[in-house]
Amino acid sequence: MEKLKEYVSVKDEDHFSHQGAVELLIFNFLLILTILTIWLFKNHRFRFLHETGGAMLYGLVMGLIIRYVTKSPDAESGTVYECEKLKSGPSTLLINITNQVYEYQYKREISHHNVNGHQGNTMLQKQMTFDPSIFFNILLPPIIFHAGYSLKKRHFFRNLGSILTYAFLGTAISCIVIGLIMYGFVKAMVHIGQLKQWEFHFTDCLFFGSLMSATDPVTVLAIFHELNVDTDLYTLLFGESVLNDAVAIVLTHSISIYSPKENPNAFDAAAFFQSVGIFLGIFAGSFAMGSSYAVVTALLTKFTKLCEFPMLETGLFFLLSWSAFLSAEAAGLTGIVAVLFCGVTQAHYTYNNLSADSKMRTKQLFEFMNFLAENVIFCYMGLALFTFQNHIFNPLFIFGALVAVFVARASNIYPLSFLLNLGRKQKIPRTFQHMMMFSGLRGAIAFALAIRDTASQPKQMMFSTALLLVFFTVWVCGGGTMPMLTWLQIRVGVDPDEDLKARAASQGAHNLDKNTTKAESAWLFRIWYGFDHKYLKPLLTHAGPPLTSTLPEWCNPLARLLTSPRAYGDQLKDGDTVYIINNDELTENYDSSAHTAVPAQDSTASSQATGKEDIQEGDLGLGGYKLQLQHTAGQPQKNSLA
Amino acid sequence: MEKLKEYVSVKDEDHFSHQGAVELLIFNFLLILTILTIWLFKNHRFRFLHETGGAMLYGLVMGLIIRYVTKSPDAESGTVYECEKLKSGPSTLLINITNQVYEYQYKREISHHNVNGHQGNTMLQKQMTFDPSIFFNILLPPIIFHAGYSLKKRHFFRNLGSILTYAFLGTAISCIVIGLIMYGFVKAMVHIGQLKQWEFHFTDCLFFGSLMSATDPVTVLAIFHELNVDTDLYTLLFGESVLNDAVAIVLTHSISIYSPKENPNAFDAAAFFQSVGIFLGIFAGSFAMGSSYAVVTALLTKFTKLCEFPMLETGLFFLLSWSAFLSAEAAGLTGIVAVLFCGVTQAHYTYNNLSADSKMRTKQLFEFMNFLAENVIFCYMGLALFTFQNHIFNPLFIFGALVAVFVARASNIYPLSFLLNLGRKQKIPRTFQHMMMFSGLRGAIAFALAIRDTASQPKQMMFSTALLLVFFTVWVCGGGTMPMLTWLQIRVGVDPDEDLKARAASQGAHNLDKNTTKAESAWLFRIWYGFDHKYLKPLLTHAGPPLTSTLPEWCNPLARLLTSPRAYGDQLKDGDTVYIINNDELTENYDSSAHTAVPAQDSTASSQATGKEDIQEGDLGLGGYKLQLQHTAGQPQKNSLA
Repeated sequence: MEKLKEYVSVKDEDHFSHQGAVELLIFNFLLILTILTIWLFKNHRFRFLHETGGAMLYGLVMGLIIRYVTKSPDAESGTVYECEKLKSGPSTLLINITNQVYEYQYKREISHHNVNGHQGNTMLQKQMTFDPSIFFNILLPPIIFHAGYSLKKRHFFRNLGSILTYAFLGTAISCIVIGLIMYGFVKAMVHIGQLKQWEFHFTDCLFFGSLMSATDPVTVLAIFHELNVDTDLYTLLFGESVLNDAVAIVLTHSISIYSPKENPNAFDAAAFFQSVGIFLGIFAGSFAMGSSYAVVTALLTKFTKLCEFPMLETGLFFLLSWSAFLSAEAAGLTGIVAVLFCGVTQAHYTYNNLSADSKMRTKQLFEFMNFLAENVIFCYMGLALFTFQNHIFNPLFIFGALVAVFVARASNIYPLSFLLNLGRKQKIPRTFQHMMMFSGLRGAIAFALAIRDTASQPKQMMFSTALLLVFFTVWVCGGGTMPMLTWLQIRVGVDPDEDLKARAASQGAHNLDKNTTKAESAWLFRIWYGFDHKYLKPLLTHAGPPLTSTLPEWCNPLARLLTSPRAYGDQLKDGDTVYIINNDELTENYDSSAHTAVPAQDSTASSQATGKEDIQEGDLGLGGYKLQLQHTAGQPQKNSLA
Repeated sequence: MEKLKEYVSVKDEDHFSHQGAVELLIFNFLLILTILTIWLFKNHRFRFLHETGGAMLYGLVMGLIIRYVTKSPDAESGTVYECEKLKSGPSTLLINITNQVYEYQYKREISHHNVNGHQGNTMLQKQMTFDPSIFFNILLPPIIFHAGYSLKKRHFFRNLGSILTYAFLGTAISCIVIGLIMYGFVKAMVHIGQLKQWEFHFTDCLFFGSLMSATDPVTVLAIFHELNVDTDLYTLLFGESVLNDAVAIVLTHSISIYSPKENPNAFDAAAFFQSVGIFLGIFAGSFAMGSSYAVVTALLTKFTKLCEFPMLETGLFFLLSWSAFLSAEAAGLTGIVAVLFCGVTQAHYTYNNLSADSKMRTKQLFEFMNFLAENVIFCYMGLALFTFQNHIFNPLFIFGALVAVFVARASNIYPLSFLLNLGRKQKIPRTFQHMMMFSGLRGAIAFALAIRDTASQPKQMMFSTALLLVFFTVWVCGGGTMPMLTWLQIRVGVDPDEDLKARAASQGAHNLDKNTTKAESAWLFRIWYGFDHKYLKPLLTHAGPPLTSTLPEWCNPLARLLTSPRAYGDQLKDGDTVYIINNDELTENYDSSAHTAVPAQDSTASSQATGKEDIQEGDLGLGGYKLQLQHTAGQPQKNSLA
């Protein structure tokens, strides 16, 4: 008897593990199909469907099959049991069933109205809708880290002011505009009786606004990269999308915490400022957490000879970067934001200390993880449309959201571009603005934020709507990128380095321009650059002027300890340094402060330095994958579009 | 009110996700510590503690801290609830708690005697003892795949007969010997009243024997590699440990299914042969599943131009290899075995089709995953000693197991070596046998098999004992490898390729030897080699003689379709082919069948071919990591030991 029971229990366990295997196998199968399809498309230079769009399409089809074709083997689910004595839901539940104790683990809270009315293979459907925390803890971090790690620093910093404006101010505008429009639609829905008043507050609308403000133009960026679209446009779009993810995540969190004391629709100044405070606190905290882990990594890789063992070095790099995410989460901050700034800082400092082998390993590892995670997410989004149990599709709400998203994008891009153009020497042309407006795709972050909480009916409605908007924007806007580029006559086939050199040369010729460039990059960043070049780089990497020459004299013993022996040799060569903002200006900036003035007109020297840096950045930012794309598909199109 | 509840529910969810973050952070922290410690040890050439041993040590310390220092925040766990109406444990349980429906997921069955008597921070302890299926589904597959993918094929096939004997016959002997000895100890325990008779059957002892037969000499192999120990010894030990994992896993499964009808202690011939049949069926099925996925990958990479997009290629390679594992699991076969043979086949065929970029990417990816997974497992084993809830330490049983494991290892190695030496030209010397005897470390697989089922008391006793034996063998035998090598005066500092060339040269000189070498490698493998070289290689890769010349004439249209254009050019150069078994003999074998006889005495040509292959294998088998070890730590020791 005992024996028999044991046998049954082993069989049961096997059953569960097989179920998990089937689930993962379906995903694998979808991803394999996606890869093969994308290869076919790439091979035939068919650019209307990006891999993420393809993954979504296959996910959709598989979701349909799971929902309507497979049969349910699990008749028992759907029954709700009553338990004596339980007052709240513990994380682990021990239950006595016919004299055998079973352990159950808490999964989620379910709204009453969702308990019945299941359809199709609920077991498999439930298995396929995996835990939302998997998005935030497993799939998103590598994507975001990779974005930070592969940032083209020079172009990014050249446009930093504009990017920050779009990311912070733009996201706030977008959030408020969507919130207001949605509130109007919600009022209308209440008016025609589709919704009860108490279900949907203005804060809920703002919550929806903030989650829909995270843009994810991965499709557009891939095409831009393939066609070598104008670097400034690429950088603006990429920088904005990376940073506005961070802003939108923290904003969503702050809004969900905003809880006015009395009437939830009334404005409560105290609660509002509390939310603003929380926003700033979490953002700053996450930034600090992420960059301090990167600083620790930089110090470890600088002061130990870990680079003799590239595998240990790569392992340490990987684990410390992941720890940045986990520590932020554990401390109640935002891991995604932490990991983004960790990536940027790792690329800026640690990368220079790594052995050549580890440089390549880390690059390729995160590139691969990014590729896989991105496709899994989009595939899963396709699946979720048919397998998620608690969809609420309200046509009016969906229509309202569609309108709101485009209006919000317009009121973000056009007014801000106008303001920015007042200060920018290198104006953002109208065509770029149209393209940025058009590239407001929604993707992984919006989805992940929406799926995080689907307990109540308003949240379910938001989730379903967000999902549909992702589909719409990825397929329609993503698919329309090529025609749009042609129609707007945007320059393609630009070599980013040639472009910059040409500009540097023209600046060398017209000496007047230099001052305006100086004005363009704000004084704050010049101060930062000086500080970085004189203190941080020499402290955290092997490069730069030795600390002994930059720190006051009484710090000399410490400075000698902290300066890498290599830094003394580098003093004049400066090979490892990455110039930020603008080459002429910054070389000059450093030259005039560290040594005594070196003629700044020496434009060949500065463009040589640029050349050096180009190689390094190309190495870091673009992996073999993307470079490969350029060679095989990019060139023949250059002329047909330009 | 509604609002409040929602807020609370969000907070709850956050709490769970933070808990997960803390848990992972502890692991990250342990791994980072391990990496730094190991670097320190490597730097000082201190070889008594391998990284896995270090990981285990830190895990142990952290387990102690979690158990005795932290306080329990969770008073509720440990209470067992009664539920009306439930007759069996469903996979998903919906429970109504104070009018709110919660979803719980099945985790495991718990023995009654384990419900109470918890100590310390049970919440954290439970969190740290994660789901056993994670071992089998996430952590083990990359380790096993990497073992297959990095197999040094030439040396492996030269010793294939011996390796298979040790792996199959040796594991069976080991399993039976351990089973018998343990049965004796169990009888003694029943005699002195420590155990009730009905709790422990002979099949349970065999089950324990089979799981303890999986050896994992990762520590020893790392040292061998670092010191360049004799290649034959390395290959015998590595090959045996890789294959005996597969055998032990399938054996354990077969024994757990063996259920005699009446008296569980009596021998039931029908049930026995059923188990043998299951063993053979599962082994063959898993082998077929694994290799067919690899064949599909080879065909896809050969017939598409996927190699133009290395990221897609790497993605496909990764996903198809993982699918081999998942499909085997889903079909009720053994994923680990499937993924092992998938790795071997991928290395043999697909690897040759990959682009240079993908070759490096796949190698480095699996190397890294192997490194990380291995350290996580050993770290977790250390943690499990203090955080696992249901340990049963029985001194007599543990002592018995210790004796049994060493006796079983001795009755595996010495008799089989004696038998093998009767047939082998290149005898396995006594010192090698002692070293193999000593290297019978237990590791990840034994642990994973033991933790899979800890529901009953006998199983818990086995788990605790297995864990202790892992600790003992890894620290004592692993730490004693260096002294043992010195004491046995085993040759170190051997260049494997030089070694083989020297042998080939001596074979060229003494022409008589060739026939004995031929006898050594069995006819079966020569037939296989011919088949592989003439049909499989040309079909699955770009190499080899064109199928048009090897297939019968009426197959010509098909053969022309399937042969790579590159194969025609390669006909004489044969650069991509990897020679198996023995170089002289096989070149001759192929030459005499495909073309008309080419003088076989031309030993320079064959050693040139060997040279080519060496480069290729070195590229595949040893990543930068291990090669690096050689350079930095290996050389200075060569003379001090030899």
